[in-house]
Amino acid sequence: RHGEAEGEDQVGVVTGLAWTEVGGELLTIEGVMMPGKGRMTVTGNLKDVMKESISAAASYVRSRAVDFGIEPPMFEKNDIHVHVPEGATPKDGPSAGVAMATAIVSIMTGIPVNKHVAMTGEITLRGRVLPIGGLKEKLLAALRGGIKKVLIPEENAKDLAEIPDNVKNSMEIIPVSRMGEVIKHALIRRPEPIEWDGTVETPVITSVEGLDDTGAAIAH
Amino acid sequence: RHGEAEGEDQVGVVTGLAWTEVGGELLTIEGVMMPGKGRMTVTGNLKDVMKESISAAASYVRSRAVDFGIEPPMFEKNDIHVHVPEGATPKDGPSAGVAMATAIVSIMTGIPVNKHVAMTGEITLRGRVLPIGGLKEKLLAALRGGIKKVLIPEENAKDLAEIPDNVKNSMEIIPVSRMGEVIKHALIRRPEPIEWDGTVETPVITSVEGLDDTGAAIAH
Amino acid sequence: RHGEAEGEDQVGVVTGLAWTEVGGELLTIEGVMMPGKGRMTVTGNLKDVMKESISAAASYVRSRAVDFGIEPPMFEKNDIHVHVPEGATPKDGPSAGVAMATAIVSIMTGIPVNKHVAMTGEITLRGRVLPIGGLKEKLLAALRGGIKKVLIPEENAKDLAEIPDNVKNSMEIIPVSRMGEVIKHALIRRPEPIEWDGTVETPVITSVEGLDDTGAAIAH
Amino acid sequence: RHGEAEGEDQVGVVTGLAWTEVGGELLTIEGVMMPGKGRMTVTGNLKDVMKESISAAASYVRSRAVDFGIEPPMFEKNDIHVHVPEGATPKDGPSAGVAMATAIVSIMTGIPVNKHVAMTGEITLRGRVLPIGGLKEKLLAALRGGIKKVLIPEENAKDLAEIPDNVKNSMEIIPVSRMGEVIKHALIRRPEPIEWDGTVETPVITSVEGLDDTGAAIAH
Amino acid sequence: RHGEAEGEDQVGVVTGLAWTEVGGELLTIEGVMMPGKGRMTVTGNLKDVMKESISAAASYVRSRAVDFGIEPPMFEKNDIHVHVPEGATPKDGPSAGVAMATAIVSIMTGIPVNKHVAMTGEITLRGRVLPIGGLKEKLLAALRGGIKKVLIPEENAKDLAEIPDNVKNSMEIIPVSRMGEVIKHALIRRPEPIEWDGTVETPVITSVEGLDDTGAAIAH
Amino acid sequence: RHGEAEGEDQVGVVTGLAWTEVGGELLTIEGVMMPGKGRMTVTGNLKDVMKESISAAASYVRSRAVDFGIEPPMFEKNDIHVHVPEGATPKDGPSAGVAMATAIVSIMTGIPVNKHVAMTGEITLRGRVLPIGGLKEKLLAALRGGIKKVLIPEENAKDLAEIPDNVKNSMEIIPVSRMGEVIKHALIRRPEPIEWDGTVETPVITSVEGLDDTGAAIAH
Ligand SMILES: [Ca+2]
Ligand SMILES: [Ca+2]
Ligand SMILES: [Ca+2]
Ligand SMILES: [Ca+2]
Ligand SMILES: [Ca+2]
Ligand SMILES: [Ca+2]
Ligand SMILES: [Ca+2]
Ligand SMILES: [Ca+2]
Ligand SMILES: [Ca+2]
Ligand SMILES: [Ca+2]
Ligand SMILES: [Ca+2]
Ligand SMILES: [Ca+2]
Repeated sequence: RHGEAEGEDQVGVVTGLAWTEVGGELLTIEGVMMPGKGRMTVTGNLKDVMKESISAAASYVRSRAVDFGIEPPMFEKNDIHVHVPEGATPKDGPSAGVAMATAIVSIMTGIPVNKHVAMTGEITLRGRVLPIGGLKEKLLAALRGGIKKVLIPEENAKDLAEIPDNVKNSMEIIPVSRMGEVIKHALIRRPEPIEWDGTVETPVITSVEGLDDTGAAIAH
Repeated sequence: RHGEAEGEDQVGVVTGLAWTEVGGELLTIEGVMMPGKGRMTVTGNLKDVMKESISAAASYVRSRAVDFGIEPPMFEKNDIHVHVPEGATPKDGPSAGVAMATAIVSIMTGIPVNKHVAMTGEITLRGRVLPIGGLKEKLLAALRGGIKKVLIPEENAKDLAEIPDNVKNSMEIIPVSRMGEVIKHALIRRPEPIEWDGTVETPVITSVEGLDDTGAAIAH
Repeated sequence: RHGEAEGEDQVGVVTGLAWTEVGGELLTIEGVMMPGKGRMTVTGNLKDVMKESISAAASYVRSRAVDFGIEPPMFEKNDIHVHVPEGATPKDGPSAGVAMATAIVSIMTGIPVNKHVAMTGEITLRGRVLPIGGLKEKLLAALRGGIKKVLIPEENAKDLAEIPDNVKNSMEIIPVSRMGEVIKHALIRRPEPIEWDGTVETPVITSVEGLDDTGAAIAH
Repeated sequence: RHGEAEGEDQVGVVTGLAWTEVGGELLTIEGVMMPGKGRMTVTGNLKDVMKESISAAASYVRSRAVDFGIEPPMFEKNDIHVHVPEGATPKDGPSAGVAMATAIVSIMTGIPVNKHVAMTGEITLRGRVLPIGGLKEKLLAALRGGIKKVLIPEENAKDLAEIPDNVKNSMEIIPVSRMGEVIKHALIRRPEPIEWDGTVETPVITSVEGLDDTGAAIAH
Repeated sequence: RHGEAEGEDQVGVVTGLAWTEVGGELLTIEGVMMPGKGRMTVTGNLKDVMKESISAAASYVRSRAVDFGIEPPMFEKNDIHVHVPEGATPKDGPSAGVAMATAIVSIMTGIPVNKHVAMTGEITLRGRVLPIGGLKEKLLAALRGGIKKVLIPEENAKDLAEIPDNVKNSMEIIPVSRMGEVIKHALIRRPEPIEWDGTVETPVITSVEGLDDTGAAIAH
Repeated sequence: RHGEAEGEDQVGVVTGLAWTEVGGELLTIEGVMMPGKGRMTVTGNLKDVMKESISAAASYVRSRAVDFGIEPPMFEKNDIHVHVPEGATPKDGPSAGVAMATAIVSIMTGIPVNKHVAMTGEITLRGRVLPIGGLKEKLLAALRGGIKKVLIPEENAKDLAEIPDNVKNSMEIIPVSRMGEVIKHALIRRPEPIEWDGTVETPVITSVEGLDDTGAAIAH
């Protein structure tokens, strides 16, 4: 049901941008959801600050669940695993926060992530995007990786003056200040908010896509 | 439902004042509440003493729940996450205690925090406000951040003599000795105490906002 | 319902006496009880030996619950938090044990602690009071703090010979060997033992305070 | 209900013998039982080997519960706390095992421990008593403490040749090889084995003590 | 029911290839499933990165359960233990990930693993096979171990140019990029996907192996 | 019901062979089972590799429960404690694995262990017996301990050439490659496999010991 072939937009796979001592690097963030009991697993040789950024990202999504069309009990009936491959490499810092949140929204909504987008930014519990370091190195890594669109924190927009023109001409660089903008650019379609009154609703088809366009079945 | 745009009073976002080796600094404290099982998560590169101050703040609020209009079962049916952004910076000390308690009262009552207020002070389990260090550096940081009103511990009032006049003239500095005063100054309206007899009350609409003022719909 | 203003006898607030490298000091011990699941939280930068002394104090009270008029299920239906303010200062040692036990009895019974009493002594699981070190420094701290009555371990009574007369003349010093004596001196009234047969009793008003003294309402 | 005055035989209080770098010492081991959920707490600045000896002692008693007249569900319906006072002194080693087991049998059966008995010996899960070191120093400590009867491991009996006569003449020294012998000497009466078929039995008076000796009430 | 004699294809036993400071080595990975509560145990002196690779492998299998014919509740009703023998040797790194996933699929489906196959490769949560180091040393170890077929990551295919011909001629070396290919080569038959609607299905015999080939019993 | 006197075959007591820096040594492994909730406790100053070998041994037995006549729910309704006495001595390494598994089978089946048998060998999750080091020292320890029969790993049989004749002539040395052989030699009778369909069977007396041999009581 989820598109997963290499080279397609995938559910739960987000490209982050990391800054290491050897320069910038693309960081794949992967999330999966499984029937479970609300457990969260994080792996990939992650150090404490990056682990905390996943925790903050998850709480942001949970506290805004209905805005993303996610029924809150989904968090208690499933387990989530977020993994950052290349397990041999230690990873740290808060700048993958928005990518973590994007991965979690994608796996909970089933909406794939646009594979041409990369992103960097610390996230707050209310979905603000905070500035990060190493912008230049990260954009160079995006360039090498063939990324078409990069989301950066609004507060880093002032640093774009120092970025070489060939980098800025090769990709669309979009400053964002809130997760809403990130989701709009990163997912292939926007999540639809739902109403939630605390009771479990029978899933009902509310979209009219695919309906016979005479609307006959509805008119009666 | 909660106002969250930049530059508005927000639920669960409180400005604390920190004192680091490079001087004073504004510290944003963020809390969110999510449907859950009574778990408390704290993140933001917090060291043990600051983590304990959140624990004390939470127990103060829980043990006084009804005074703030909070039904005690809310603590068992929700999870709370308190985060202090800028995850790359370690943070420690007890002086954010009153800000932590204010954030928790705000998220549990849904009452926004006045964004022009900053505060500093250790909290006790009974809501006393204990003195802190670095008052001058913290007030200078508040000045730079454009804060209009600062709550400081009563026992630090004697230290105001050493604070430059330009600082004292730029903002209202209010010494407080108990959390009740903090809440009165920091939230945009005061929480209403409730009675609680241990049974779950059906939520009843007690506000008349939005009702037709003839009351017609009700009279029938 | 609980008296909590500064300067009044409070429920759950006990003055201990600590001995640090800079001399003796008053130590406030605070406890609160909240609806919960039997969890115990201890905070205040406490090291292992002091944490264990709270554990021993709690087990002493739990194992003697009925002697203090506490129905045993109260321990499973509530959470307890014991905090020792001034979170920036590390605290250790077993000599706050009797103060911890007094705080727990106070919060479970709702009986306030006499604010003029301070105390020091290690506690055992059966409520014996064991001797402590630094008696002189502790009594000097009590003197500076204006304490009227100090409870010390019986086995430290021999050390009173070395205490200056001005200290001994300024306060009542009471050697105690068991927690029963501590409770008698520290709480403003004595807890009433109850019978407990394992079934939950409906709370019944057994006090006649406030009843019209003709008893008319009852006679009908 | 339990005799607890100083100088009486008490339930759950056992005198062990420790061997420290400054010589032998009496070690009080205290246990209490509280309504709970089968939790075991151990305190008193105990290091890992001593903690494990309490674990082994508890499993010995649990696996033999019926032989001691203890209904197995008692372990799941109660919490046990074992504490070794003088919390400031670190304690280690396996030689308090038999004293730990004696304390647990005493608190689960309610049978007091003979206060004139001290003991030393490692315990196995099947109740064998293994040899210990420092016998001489331990017996000297027992002598100083006025102990009348000391239980030592059978395999240490050979070391008695090196013990001064004045020590051996001042107390009864009893080599033991199994916990059954320890219990026989240490508790003031022997526990009565019960039958247990896995169902909870209504407590029935099976003793005829106190019955009218005509047996009239039974004959009808 | 499971074939387990030495020298036969076994359920849950997979041959990995490790690279240690003394060269390449065969690594046996063993998994077993037991009735339980969804617990996962990993042993064999495994360091953090290898432990995390088992966690990622397990989440890959859980999130794809139905594709492998595994009913999702099996994960909650059973415990899984993955062990890497020779407990005295520490083991680390992510390159056993695909072998871990193969072992878990084998134990959950009951399909034996082809004993002539060895494999190396890091796994992602979506079943991609990532490149590894030490290919030459690992293939030499496979040669010494008499392995007939080795699965290597597609991205390591370029390194085959440096491998001696005698190695390449002695075994079939198959580059793979996804777990689906690994499973196809490693298990003795392919798992059959199932439909799963969240309700527990009564197990129904869908295979006709062993049925009388007249089909008489079915025709009635 | 279980024979436990010194010098008799006991349930859950197995003699292992250890290799320490001072030579070989007999290692007693003790297990007990208690009504509980499926918890496993391991004590005796065991280091990580030995703890893991107990975990592997337990999973081997659990995953093969029915082959040993053990109803799988027994693991969830009981707690198991494995202890290696002489708590003051640290113990490590995987070579006690087969002894651990033997102890667990013995306590779960109630079948005593032949006290004349000692054993050494690492265990895998599928019950293979892996080779160990220090064979000579271990056999010398068995000789000193008066052991009549020693089980060693098949892969160590080649090392017997270096063992002095007087050792080989004093005891029966049996190379084994699988736990089935270990159980056959070590328990005083072989466990009977059972069928298990997931429902709890009423215990039925299947032994005819003690029945009148005319079978009269059955014939009616
Ligand atoms: Ca890379
Ligand atoms: Ca919204
Ligand atoms: Ca800053
Ligand atoms: Ca009030
Ligand atoms: Ca009493
Ligand atoms: Ca102070
Ligand atoms: Ca002493
Ligand atoms: Ca018996
Ligand atoms: Ca699929
Ligand atoms: Ca090897
Ligand atoms: Ca020995
Ligand atoms: Ca079998």
